[in-house]
Amino acid sequence: MKSKTSTIRTRASERNAFVDLTDDLRRAIKDSGVTDGCAVAFCAHTTAALVVNEWEDGALADFRRHLDDWVPHEGVYFAHDDFEIRTQNLHEDERKNGHAHVKAMIMGATSHAIPVAGGEPLFGQWQRLLLLELDEPKDRDVVVHVFGG
Amino acid sequence: MKSKTSTIRTRASERNAFVDLTDDLRRAIKDSGVTDGCAVAFCAHTTAALVVNEWEDGALADFRRHLDDWVPHEGVYFAHDDFEIRTQNLHEDERKNGHAHVKAMIMGATSHAIPVAGGEPLFGQWQRLLLLELDEPKDRDVVVHVFGG
Amino acid sequence: MKSKTSTIRTRASERNAFVDLTDDLRRAIKDSGVTDGCAVAFCAHTTAALVVNEWEDGALADFRRHLDDWVPHEGVYFAHDDFEIRTQNLHEDERKNGHAHVKAMIMGATSHAIPVAGGEPLFGQWQRLLLLELDEPKDRDVVVHVFGG
Repeated sequence: MKSKTSTIRTRASERNAFVDLTDDLRRAIKDSGVTDGCAVAFCAHTTAALVVNEWEDGALADFRRHLDDWVPHEGVYFAHDDFEIRTQNLHEDERKNGHAHVKAMIMGATSHAIPVAGGEPLFGQWQRLLLLELDEPKDRDVVVHVFGG
Repeated sequence: MKSKTSTIRTRASERNAFVDLTDDLRRAIKDSGVTDGCAVAFCAHTTAALVVNEWEDGALADFRRHLDDWVPHEGVYFAHDDFEIRTQNLHEDERKNGHAHVKAMIMGATSHAIPVAGGEPLFGQWQRLLLLELDEPKDRDVVVHVFGG
Repeated sequence: MKSKTSTIRTRASERNAFVDLTDDLRRAIKDSGVTDGCAVAFCAHTTAALVVNEWEDGALADFRRHLDDWVPHEGVYFAHDDFEIRTQNLHEDERKNGHAHVKAMIMGATSHAIPVAGGEPLFGQWQRLLLLELDEPKDRDVVVHVFGG
């Protein structure tokens, strides 16, 4: 039984951009020495999400549009961004990102568990591991824990 | 390789209330003796969800409002609550909670896998493990399975 | 420490149909010889999702209706289905399934981690493992990785 935890650090180009982490995931699996087992990918942030889906620009744009229609990032009241009344967890560079918290919570996609065989993730033909930046871009850490034989 | 399964029993104060389970999760990890590995948190219910996000009252209220706007718990028809036609899985204290099933399914947040290092969950700065009660409050069990070295 | 990876192959009867995989999951756990540990179920597709919830026809219909209201499969523009402009990942039997990608991404339900005790998944009373076909039916593979003692 082997296991290894590593971190992928990445940064999206802009709000709502996806970053393809599939190659980083494959590398983390190789580095762990695990050939058969499982990889857990965990997004250590509250305003970004991990998505396992296809990288096709149109599909990603379609998703962004639907998500923004449901939770517009402007023109809607967010208590999280109401600094007149808010008292909790305030820090220096607080930004208006209430919309991003709501999106992250509805997506429910903080972690994924992906079986591994032959040293590779058992992704279907079109599956890739993607990070979706819901806030303004900053450095993001995705923790990968690989375990197995 | 160690592993341990334990159960966190909790009860929210009202429908749509969150309960912070972060300290319970930390305790389950300590009790397992695992220092490096992974913790799986699993909600054993169909009308409650686990959320990994920030506890900030405003953000939680924002999320509740968006979720209720999309799936109102009153004034909308739910076949699950139509006891004139429903025949499956009826039990004594059946309640009208069709809205809660729809919310739980869209959230897709029955389980989370959280890497562990140094005996602690590898949460980002603002991340906490939260239970969201979507139905009227009752005792809820969250199973925690910790494994590693 | 034992572990075993197996695949459940299934096919839904129509678009938006659910398939109950609970018995297949139980069998995969039995076949692994694991009595106490965890089972990961992973959907190897980008237009289908795994749901852990109740099989009650009304609740499943309620969910389908809400999901289709939010992402209609017809009458809405999807860039993924715009073959005038799309250039990526095109294959022979390309179908118009942009709606299914959006639904799969919002559900965020590619994988679930389910603790196992006494050789059984630790499901609550009404929980079952369901595959939701979001596209037109075809063969679907759900990978199950079971590990533990």
